[in-house]
Amino acid sequence: MRPSGRDVSEMRPVSIETGVTKHAEGSCLIRIGDTHVLCTASLEPRVPPFLKNSGLGWVTAEYGMLPRATTTRMRREATAGKQGGRTVEIQRLIGRSLRAGVDRVALGERQITVDCDVIQADGGTRCAAITGGWVALRLAVNKLLKTGEVLSDPLIDPVAAVSCGIYAGQPVLDLDYPEDSEAGVDGNFVMTGSGRLIEVQMSAEGGTFTRVQMDKLMELAEKGVTDLVAAQKAAVEA
Amino acid sequence: MRPSGRDVSEMRPVSIETGVTKHAEGSCLIRIGDTHVLCTASLEPRVPPFLKNSGLGWVTAEYGMLPRATTTRMRREATAGKQGGRTVEIQRLIGRSLRAGVDRVALGERQITVDCDVIQADGGTRCAAITGGWVALRLAVNKLLKTGEVLSDPLIDPVAAVSCGIYAGQPVLDLDYPEDSEAGVDGNFVMTGSGRLIEVQMSAEGGTFTRVQMDKLMELAEKGVTDLVAAQKAAVEA
Amino acid sequence: MRPSGRDVSEMRPVSIETGVTKHAEGSCLIRIGDTHVLCTASLEPRVPPFLKNSGLGWVTAEYGMLPRATTTRMRREATAGKQGGRTVEIQRLIGRSLRAGVDRVALGERQITVDCDVIQADGGTRCAAITGGWVALRLAVNKLLKTGEVLSDPLIDPVAAVSCGIYAGQPVLDLDYPEDSEAGVDGNFVMTGSGRLIEVQMSAEGGTFTRVQMDKLMELAEKGVTDLVAAQKAAVEA
Amino acid sequence: MRPSGRDVSEMRPVSIETGVTKHAEGSCLIRIGDTHVLCTASLEPRVPPFLKNSGLGWVTAEYGMLPRATTTRMRREATAGKQGGRTVEIQRLIGRSLRAGVDRVALGERQITVDCDVIQADGGTRCAAITGGWVALRLAVNKLLKTGEVLSDPLIDPVAAVSCGIYAGQPVLDLDYPEDSEAGVDGNFVMTGSGRLIEVQMSAEGGTFTRVQMDKLMELAEKGVTDLVAAQKAAVEA
Amino acid sequence: MRPSGRDVSEMRPVSIETGVTKHAEGSCLIRIGDTHVLCTASLEPRVPPFLKNSGLGWVTAEYGMLPRATTTRMRREATAGKQGGRTVEIQRLIGRSLRAGVDRVALGERQITVDCDVIQADGGTRCAAITGGWVALRLAVNKLLKTGEVLSDPLIDPVAAVSCGIYAGQPVLDLDYPEDSEAGVDGNFVMTGSGRLIEVQMSAEGGTFTRVQMDKLMELAEKGVTDLVAAQKAAVEA
Amino acid sequence: MRPSGRDVSEMRPVSIETGVTKHAEGSCLIRIGDTHVLCTASLEPRVPPFLKNSGLGWVTAEYGMLPRATTTRMRREATAGKQGGRTVEIQRLIGRSLRAGVDRVALGERQITVDCDVIQADGGTRCAAITGGWVALRLAVNKLLKTGEVLSDPLIDPVAAVSCGIYAGQPVLDLDYPEDSEAGVDGNFVMTGSGRLIEVQMSAEGGTFTRVQMDKLMELAEKGVTDLVAAQKAAVEA
Repeated sequence: MRPSGRDVSEMRPVSIETGVTKHAEGSCLIRIGDTHVLCTASLEPRVPPFLKNSGLGWVTAEYGMLPRATTTRMRREATAGKQGGRTVEIQRLIGRSLRAGVDRVALGERQITVDCDVIQADGGTRCAAITGGWVALRLAVNKLLKTGEVLSDPLIDPVAAVSCGIYAGQPVLDLDYPEDSEAGVDGNFVMTGSGRLIEVQMSAEGGTFTRVQMDKLMELAEKGVTDLVAAQKAAVEA
Repeated sequence: MRPSGRDVSEMRPVSIETGVTKHAEGSCLIRIGDTHVLCTASLEPRVPPFLKNSGLGWVTAEYGMLPRATTTRMRREATAGKQGGRTVEIQRLIGRSLRAGVDRVALGERQITVDCDVIQADGGTRCAAITGGWVALRLAVNKLLKTGEVLSDPLIDPVAAVSCGIYAGQPVLDLDYPEDSEAGVDGNFVMTGSGRLIEVQMSAEGGTFTRVQMDKLMELAEKGVTDLVAAQKAAVEA
Repeated sequence: MRPSGRDVSEMRPVSIETGVTKHAEGSCLIRIGDTHVLCTASLEPRVPPFLKNSGLGWVTAEYGMLPRATTTRMRREATAGKQGGRTVEIQRLIGRSLRAGVDRVALGERQITVDCDVIQADGGTRCAAITGGWVALRLAVNKLLKTGEVLSDPLIDPVAAVSCGIYAGQPVLDLDYPEDSEAGVDGNFVMTGSGRLIEVQMSAEGGTFTRVQMDKLMELAEKGVTDLVAAQKAAVEA
Repeated sequence: MRPSGRDVSEMRPVSIETGVTKHAEGSCLIRIGDTHVLCTASLEPRVPPFLKNSGLGWVTAEYGMLPRATTTRMRREATAGKQGGRTVEIQRLIGRSLRAGVDRVALGERQITVDCDVIQADGGTRCAAITGGWVALRLAVNKLLKTGEVLSDPLIDPVAAVSCGIYAGQPVLDLDYPEDSEAGVDGNFVMTGSGRLIEVQMSAEGGTFTRVQMDKLMELAEKGVTDLVAAQKAAVEA
Repeated sequence: MRPSGRDVSEMRPVSIETGVTKHAEGSCLIRIGDTHVLCTASLEPRVPPFLKNSGLGWVTAEYGMLPRATTTRMRREATAGKQGGRTVEIQRLIGRSLRAGVDRVALGERQITVDCDVIQADGGTRCAAITGGWVALRLAVNKLLKTGEVLSDPLIDPVAAVSCGIYAGQPVLDLDYPEDSEAGVDGNFVMTGSGRLIEVQMSAEGGTFTRVQMDKLMELAEKGVTDLVAAQKAAVEA
Repeated sequence: MRPSGRDVSEMRPVSIETGVTKHAEGSCLIRIGDTHVLCTASLEPRVPPFLKNSGLGWVTAEYGMLPRATTTRMRREATAGKQGGRTVEIQRLIGRSLRAGVDRVALGERQITVDCDVIQADGGTRCAAITGGWVALRLAVNKLLKTGEVLSDPLIDPVAAVSCGIYAGQPVLDLDYPEDSEAGVDGNFVMTGSGRLIEVQMSAEGGTFTRVQMDKLMELAEKGVTDLVAAQKAAVEA
């Protein structure tokens, strides 16, 4: 029934390759099917003004798409002169999601910026960005632990995200682009490795859904995140 | 336990005053406690380019805050030279929410722009904007029905929204600003008059939550939306 | 002769309602006929850089229009990415006008920002903004006097403004929109309660006028400002 | 009494050199004392959208200052990313003033853009721009008349402008920079060759003035404009 | 003598991997040492306005750097709200360089946009972008030839580029970042496969150079481009 | 053969008039044929942040064109909201070129900003700007030497620039606009009074060139710069 022939609760193949750029403190290239996102974590000396002398750290994120990551070329945001509304929404979501897994006291007064740049898009880029972004963050924090700049681990719990939606009347896991462009209802679920919820965004463009459907999507999401957290673990330990 | 002394499932007082500006095709001033939002619906001759000659209508929304709607004065977005990320997120949410209740074939190839401007803010402005925005939309569509420009009612079901969150460890309905600024977890629920879901946005800034909590918040939201839809009905029929 | 049936020297009904928002140090909703402007005065800790350590205070103003304050919806300036030329002109005028009535030594090194937002427009919005803006300023300064933060009253003289123009060949007071859009010559007169001039802006779009006409308009303005200052006084003392 | 030793009703020396750039349809370099403004009039094929197929012409103006036209270098507006409020105000004034002397039916559906760029500033740049701008406009229109593109002269009456102000308590004509920076009250008067008024802008920054003073300033302005119109005539006929 | 131990006329290792994204009509990842640039060529239906109905094609380029392509994180240009001067200069150079090798009549009225995004930077990114950009262009044009949309090959001659500079007093080929940041004189040479020159940009920041040095750099460049054209050929034929 | 009848190695007439604005520390109006550029050098108290407390000076440049400097009116960059790519490229070139002739230790920690504004354009504006800009810089530095603010001359060697190109198959010196718009290959050569090279920018738009042609163009440039340096010397000593 799905264009890809996948089962309703089947994720696309996931691969996470770490250490892909020599400059960043942490980096990975995450591939969820044909969605490829390059994630880097940069340690930065300054914290935002509202945290000066607070002793608390900060994790923030930025998101971008290469112009030809998509089927037809999109205008470069740097040329357009601003980030679009969709981009702003996504990068705020990534930042909030990653921070939910961070003990900001343990991190200390430093900032880590996670950049997620989509090299190739085929649906679910924001979820791939969160999942890969956490791996980059994990690797950068590992360096801080190794050098002794940070003494106790500020990463409480892995953070990963997956999309679900109702495609052809059926709740399905991990929408690819052909499904995403058809689905009247879809959403993103950000969860921790221990199964707690961080963010739930269900949205119907031109339709509605029921609590029963919502519950079914939540179950699918739990399964997907379990798979993703296993892939994160494998990548970080590799 | 709540700063306002309200019960956990108690909404703030709601009032919706219609016909508040003489120019707009539909308008209301919605007050949810001390949150006051002026909503206008403007009928516009043009549809967005992607709908030219499609026969389909469009409903879109814009959101703004007067600079001193808040405790301390905020910078005017027109002076800053752009809408902030929060504003863009909110107005996209309002637009999607209202469109979910519209039969765009019945509306025909015309656009209605709903402007939601916050006169005074005390938490829950985006939910008030959706709830009041639907009233303004309803009044504008009523004019189209009365003049015969539109023949069958394009508004399928009322749309309203309410916030819920976990305050002091307890799920509560309709957060006001003192609660909102403390709550680690909060969300917005957009629903129809018949109880179907349009949008669910649960978010944890610096924390996590469980499915059991999520279910409890959903129940509170259902109660809140029922109250709001009744207030919408009363306002429109007044 | 006038579309509204008013006499040439007759103002529209004036009402000034104070205390309309709970956050601002001073606020009012001024209605001059169908022109409604919400004015707030915000006390701000910082003065502009050129006044640092000067001991002098500053009063400034910003002006905006809700998108559907007008007959047809106008583009939101925050969306357009900048304030239009007309907006910038008007808010500079409001700021200069209000400052002319302020003893900046007595005010001390603090800034008051007066925001004037047009809820509904029917001609004369900048004059209503100045007149209502002064009331908001008066109320904010009253608080400073009451708390003893300011010891002697920095408000020397009330400031109010009215428009006049030549409509159908005849000098008339307080143009409404139907008159304003027809008048080839119109202007704004800002004056003090004691009858001194602060700003005179007479302008002919596509025409010219004589000194005799100018003198007649000045007389009408003096009458109008006298009425407005009385309304300000009543509102502040209410 | 005046820093320059001039009499209260004495203009600075005026010179208008025409034909200063080879590309523009009309051009002049106007010097009012040490204020030097280069004015060009460009004939453009298109009219603004609101005049399409109206048969009416349009005259508009833009104003700029070279960064080192002033005592200390100012930031280039192209670098700052936008025209300042003062610039916008001035160029709108120049456009309105010039249009008041134009028969737009006689001009026909074409646009003339008058650029006024200040090479050296010493007070009164906007008045010099209007006076020189009219000369550039006159020369461009002369070309249209010579080629027969326009049949009857669309320039009804010369347009010129002068500043006046109250310096050291005394009304004086044609403020230079040392006077302008001291004067609490100053204004600009735009008039026609036949002595009619187009625009009066009197403004008090931090003070007020009386009708008697206003009348005196008006008399000075009439004298100044008479001198300027004679200089325009001489330049055009040279 | 060189930090890398390379000989003065020795290029870094070059690799060009084609077909790296599934959406673009042509793509490659070029690696010149540690400088990695992703190049895509996108066929676009529209040509720029000045070529409408001319029968001529257009090739243009855009350039970007991922924020952490560099040693320390740079601000994202989309966030900054504009492309920096360096970016604009580089993308104009890439576009001009590629067009010099294109028969725009043979290409026909279509546009190809070449996007060059730096994944990792270690000096010479603009030269890598031109060299890789030509490969992406070649592959996209091959598709047009295969489908018969274009009948005769519009690519006259390969285009490649290399940097040279004076490092520690000695002319050297293909500067890496440690050399580039020290070199007082450096430049970029764009040439064709047949050894003709397209663009020469020699620049001294804080120094000067002689014609003898210039000649020596030119010789090095010729050697470098020969190597690069061989690598392009191998990649395209692979 | 050349439209102007000039010999292939013949410059247009050069004139440099100094002291053309009363405010700038150094200024000149340079005329190369019909290309007229006003150059001012402004002494500024601050250096860029990266030079704070370094003891080193800075020379930078900005470039602009009056809207009607060209055959048809161009959009004003301040109105467009940003400097175009061509402008940015040119002003970076001017700055680099002038700095190459400056001993920044001798200059001391101060900045000189050279503004080059094109009054009338007929080809070669960037070369005229460099050549005239150096004269303005020379005059400003002379003032610093006279007052003793600077003790040893920071200007090592004069800096001048000329364009060359291949017009109708023939290398020619100092392209005017009719030649420039036809030439497939053209370039700019920045040199010192003692004949050393600072910047070479040869560029082919839609063509290529050979080393033999390049050598010939270089010879022409050397001749042109010799003439220009003589004109600079005469102007400064006048």
